[in-house]
Amino acid sequence: MDNFPVLAQADASLPNYTQENRLLVQSAVKSDALAEEKVGSDFDYRMMQRCLELARRALGRTSPNPLVGAVIVKDGEIVGEGFHPRAGEPHAEVFALKAAGDLARGATVYVSLEPCNHYGRTPPCSEGLIAAGVAKVVVGMVDPNPLVAGGGIARLRAAGVEVLVGVEAEACQRLNEAFAHRILYKQPLGILKYAMTLDGKIATTSGHSAWVTNQDARSEVHQLRAACDAIIVGGNTVRQDNPYLTSHQVEAHNPLRVVMSRHLNLPEDARVWNTAAAPTLVLTELGSSPDFQKFLLAQGVEVVELTSLTPEAAMTDLYERGFCSVLWECGGTLAASAIAQGAVQKILAFIAPKIIGGSDAPTPVGDLGLTTMTEALSLERVRWRVVGSDCLVEGYLPQKNQ
Amino acid sequence: MDNFPVLAQADASLPNYTQENRLLVQSAVKSDALAEEKVGSDFDYRMMQRCLELARRALGRTSPNPLVGAVIVKDGEIVGEGFHPRAGEPHAEVFALKAAGDLARGATVYVSLEPCNHYGRTPPCSEGLIAAGVAKVVVGMVDPNPLVAGGGIARLRAAGVEVLVGVEAEACQRLNEAFAHRILYKQPLGILKYAMTLDGKIATTSGHSAWVTNQDARSEVHQLRAACDAIIVGGNTVRQDNPYLTSHQVEAHNPLRVVMSRHLNLPEDARVWNTAAAPTLVLTELGSSPDFQKFLLAQGVEVVELTSLTPEAAMTDLYERGFCSVLWECGGTLAASAIAQGAVQKILAFIAPKIIGGSDAPTPVGDLGLTTMTEALSLERVRWRVVGSDCLVEGYLPQKNQ
Repeated sequence: MDNFPVLAQADASLPNYTQENRLLVQSAVKSDALAEEKVGSDFDYRMMQRCLELARRALGRTSPNPLVGAVIVKDGEIVGEGFHPRAGEPHAEVFALKAAGDLARGATVYVSLEPCNHYGRTPPCSEGLIAAGVAKVVVGMVDPNPLVAGGGIARLRAAGVEVLVGVEAEACQRLNEAFAHRILYKQPLGILKYAMTLDGKIATTSGHSAWVTNQDARSEVHQLRAACDAIIVGGNTVRQDNPYLTSHQVEAHNPLRVVMSRHLNLPEDARVWNTAAAPTLVLTELGSSPDFQKFLLAQGVEVVELTSLTPEAAMTDLYERGFCSVLWECGGTLAASAIAQGAVQKILAFIAPKIIGGSDAPTPVGDLGLTTMTEALSLERVRWRVVGSDCLVEGYLPQKNQ
Repeated sequence: MDNFPVLAQADASLPNYTQENRLLVQSAVKSDALAEEKVGSDFDYRMMQRCLELARRALGRTSPNPLVGAVIVKDGEIVGEGFHPRAGEPHAEVFALKAAGDLARGATVYVSLEPCNHYGRTPPCSEGLIAAGVAKVVVGMVDPNPLVAGGGIARLRAAGVEVLVGVEAEACQRLNEAFAHRILYKQPLGILKYAMTLDGKIATTSGHSAWVTNQDARSEVHQLRAACDAIIVGGNTVRQDNPYLTSHQVEAHNPLRVVMSRHLNLPEDARVWNTAAAPTLVLTELGSSPDFQKFLLAQGVEVVELTSLTPEAAMTDLYERGFCSVLWECGGTLAASAIAQGAVQKILAFIAPKIIGGSDAPTPVGDLGLTTMTEALSLERVRWRVVGSDCLVEGYLPQKNQ
């Protein structure tokens, strides 16, 4: 990979990718810009990679907080490490400082996100680092909240600590893109994920969809779920596919499974009602089928009645739960509605190189009211990546949708 | 590209790719096999590349003959070059020998396809090479016709000429895949090409499709057309898109434009009736609209009435014209019919990273009668390649369709 350091760098920001999953390309402009901006030495780069690795151990468990990892280096050796395990527990720097003990004095601290500078549930990390007598702090990215960004860095510098900012910045930003989106837009990051054939179908004409993609792509989806706070599907998906919607991995996080259903005309034997596997929330409209609601509550499923069951209202509910990332794994009708209401910012499309045919077979996105091809929503920051025999396309909807 | 010699090699087999068009991946198994089988030295490799370059100068013009290039090397220097310009004209070796003159004696001849060993419109090249006293012949690929394969090589060896076979074999095979298909299956190679959005649509719900892909992908389509003998569309495409169906390049070959229309309910001002730009053939059913037929003939359009207007019948007509490659640029209904009838062997799908939406928007392939996802036609030898901002997916339908 020596020829493509920037691509390798970007790849490392994604959770647990297996060796054969190769990032194929991203915008050339972006790569060039990054190449020019490279901050820090190769050693700094490796240490920040380690921070990201540590941060990812808490994948899916830190919301509304970010994923953060920290490494303390003294005389070229790691003397302390830590990560933020979940909201309410200490920050990554605290664990790393504790592990390093007296060795922290005069050491360099690597941390993937700017140390906090405010009293929250825990005292500010900037003060902790100063008190420990560290000589230098290397920061991956500044705090995404423009109101507090730079405060921790300024405090450290004012106390005479050397600070380097922006090592592996893009990878750090990617890891916490959902956290940053939540902070900036007061809404969780909405990710629409679907799998389609090379002729654009997510199922056959009769609705059969198992499986569009191969095992590698499906494992990738399970990893993706483990990184998200919630997954949303509509009633149709429950009726047609009867999915588990879990991360299918021992010890991995399972997101909250959310079913949006106006009339609750849902089967009693759906797998998502098994709340021993993972929690489930049903969003419905006021007064819908009290009997089925009773059944759901008996299964341990939470039911919330909304005056208007829309993607927007769903995202508001999930925001209020402190969620950063919401995965839409729904069919085309709900997906279109979610896109139209600004509840989706990112697209993850798996494409399987197979042809199924069908003029009426379902496709990933229903009506958006666009009549000419020039009105299409062109994705930004697009990356094409081969995953096993399939391809994963990742991109972001234009800013107006964010 | 030093890290990926095999990929670079495969890429070189494709016509006139621009620098930014990068081959992303092909089957890892295939790459490994190739790496093991590499035949010849780096110099041999470069000379065979030159043969392919020369061969491509006649792109689209040699059917029913293959594309062939030849290079003659004496003491490490090229002393003669040639390519086969079109059927009825001399073979590549003849031009190269003529250019080399006396220098051919004791020289090494590189040729992308096994020299012929039979009297056709021209005398056998094997004899010409022997008569010129060449010392060695390096062959890209053997003759694809199993009945004659190896004959030219055996004749050369019998005359004491050293022969090396298989240098850049895959690239040579790819260049003449349509020729080989014609020989082996008595049918032109059918290539289905389409461009779709990331949500699987080839047009909006109202049928608007200009443009799905960006300029780079469209240029690639123009190059593709220049390499094909015919392009087929249905009446709907003529009515909806009013395409030119030309290669849009000065001096490039324009394929025969073929319109399949049962009732000839076509507009009189369609661009394809302008036969000054490129020839046009209309395939229709016996006795359809005599008036419109008269109009077409007056425009210089050829009209052929078939008893049954099917993709299969169309391919038979085009085979009898000596064609090797036929590009299907039709809509989903005709595409499905062509796939079902075995008139398509290869798929070229351009995917644009944009979302247009539409539950009823047209998709690339209509009904194939497949009801479960497990029945989908899985493509073989799949390659994903970024072309500008879009992706080109190339693959072959399973053998049963060939």
